[in-house]
Amino acid sequence: MDKRPIGVFDSGLGGLSVIKELNRVLPEENIVYFGDTGRVPYGTKSAETIVKYTRQDERFLLSHDVKLIIAACGTVSSVAGFTADELPVPFIEVVTPAAKAAVKATKNGRIGVLGTAATVNSNSYKNKMLEIDPNLTVVQNACPVFVQLVESGWIDRDDEVTIAAAKRYLQPLIKHKVDTVILGCTHFPAIKDIIADIMGEGVTLINSGEQAALAAAEYLNTNGLLGEGGRRRYFVSDRAESFASIAGILLGTEIEDDVEMVAIESFGG
Amino acid sequence: MDKRPIGVFDSGLGGLSVIKELNRVLPEENIVYFGDTGRVPYGTKSAETIVKYTRQDERFLLSHDVKLIIAACGTVSSVAGFTADELPVPFIEVVTPAAKAAVKATKNGRIGVLGTAATVNSNSYKNKMLEIDPNLTVVQNACPVFVQLVESGWIDRDDEVTIAAAKRYLQPLIKHKVDTVILGCTHFPAIKDIIADIMGEGVTLINSGEQAALAAAEYLNTNGLLGEGGRRRYFVSDRAESFASIAGILLGTEIEDDVEMVAIESFGG
Repeated sequence: MDKRPIGVFDSGLGGLSVIKELNRVLPEENIVYFGDTGRVPYGTKSAETIVKYTRQDERFLLSHDVKLIIAACGTVSSVAGFTADELPVPFIEVVTPAAKAAVKATKNGRIGVLGTAATVNSNSYKNKMLEIDPNLTVVQNACPVFVQLVESGWIDRDDEVTIAAAKRYLQPLIKHKVDTVILGCTHFPAIKDIIADIMGEGVTLINSGEQAALAAAEYLNTNGLLGEGGRRRYFVSDRAESFASIAGILLGTEIEDDVEMVAIESFGG
Repeated sequence: MDKRPIGVFDSGLGGLSVIKELNRVLPEENIVYFGDTGRVPYGTKSAETIVKYTRQDERFLLSHDVKLIIAACGTVSSVAGFTADELPVPFIEVVTPAAKAAVKATKNGRIGVLGTAATVNSNSYKNKMLEIDPNLTVVQNACPVFVQLVESGWIDRDDEVTIAAAKRYLQPLIKHKVDTVILGCTHFPAIKDIIADIMGEGVTLINSGEQAALAAAEYLNTNGLLGEGGRRRYFVSDRAESFASIAGILLGTEIEDDVEMVAIESFGG
């Protein structure tokens, strides 16, 4: 039994989709979430800046005595995962668990990856899967418009704008006959039905946030570190008017707990 | 004759569409551009943060001995325009010139405003126009998806995703029979043909960046401050891989001049 909280951070509110999965698989855990809403997005920034911000985010979570850190951000996982070596606690990112799950799921050895531009350009999912099986065919596509479509709430299964954007983004994956698709951005599970409809039956979607939550559960369970209390604390670096609506879309429920502000720049770097 | 440069700043690269207009109306002027690409977007941040960033951006431009500052950012113009009172040089923002042009252009007294969420929520264009004529009907709509569509280069006149998004966003303006539409975000002129096609003939589009450039030309001309040299210097606070392609879309041409990095946080605040 270890009642210390799990620390989860993201460049913004996207990581709340990982909290949604943690609520399902580890409801009893205490969780501290930090969303760097004052500096979102990370995906368009340089690698140097992303690493600096990641270290600040990790220091903030460590200040809350977390027992485990989850980087719920595809960009951080892809570009700044090496910062885990500097941490005194275990670290789970969203790339490795999803890559493993995709390799396990595919039958024809053809896997698609959808993410932000930074995630796709880093080849993080692709490289991780090719490490496991060099014979795989991996087809990647950056889908930056999806993020804003989700944040705008255009997520209904029959939303014609989102369907039109998804058809364009998924075309290379369909052309290459992938049978497994990694949703490599925390925002994308919100439109998984639209993606599933276009990809068609027989294609498995891998939710990277869900896989990270499952990996966290397995780690805590195996190491006797499961906790109790179920407390959720949310911290952000800036709070805009749109916070409540976007949080509701990604978390799948309203945030009833308090949301606190953090001066994240003060955490070194 | 005053060879000091004009200073132009924006939350990111959107302000390059104002440079595009300045290149047309004031080609001989020297210009220093600052794009806060490391902290873009401003539109989703709190008013307090936007004001702090604006002051830093203005101090940076003043360090280049500018004779005039143009805030090429709808969010700054809407939320932080009052910082102009602290400046030792004249200040032109994008709201006032466009509001005046729209009031002049409308025949039926019904005007639409398209912008980011922050711009629309501030009611800046609406209030400015109602100051001039309280009998106007102003219909606003926030169009956050447009920004990402433009940055993705989905700007062809027959782009079906952008057309579908535009039809949704413009619907309330069409319903209220506006005859004039302010493009209240620097990204939107890139898709003005799509907007014009949907709004139909007889509807005047007001490009806020163009109006700001015209206001700058009039001010310099009236006050004997026109310069010469035609030098362009571009500064950014972070440089991502996508810089060149987005700059090309907004500026309408490649940036041949050097692009320099600025540690913008060091300019106080």
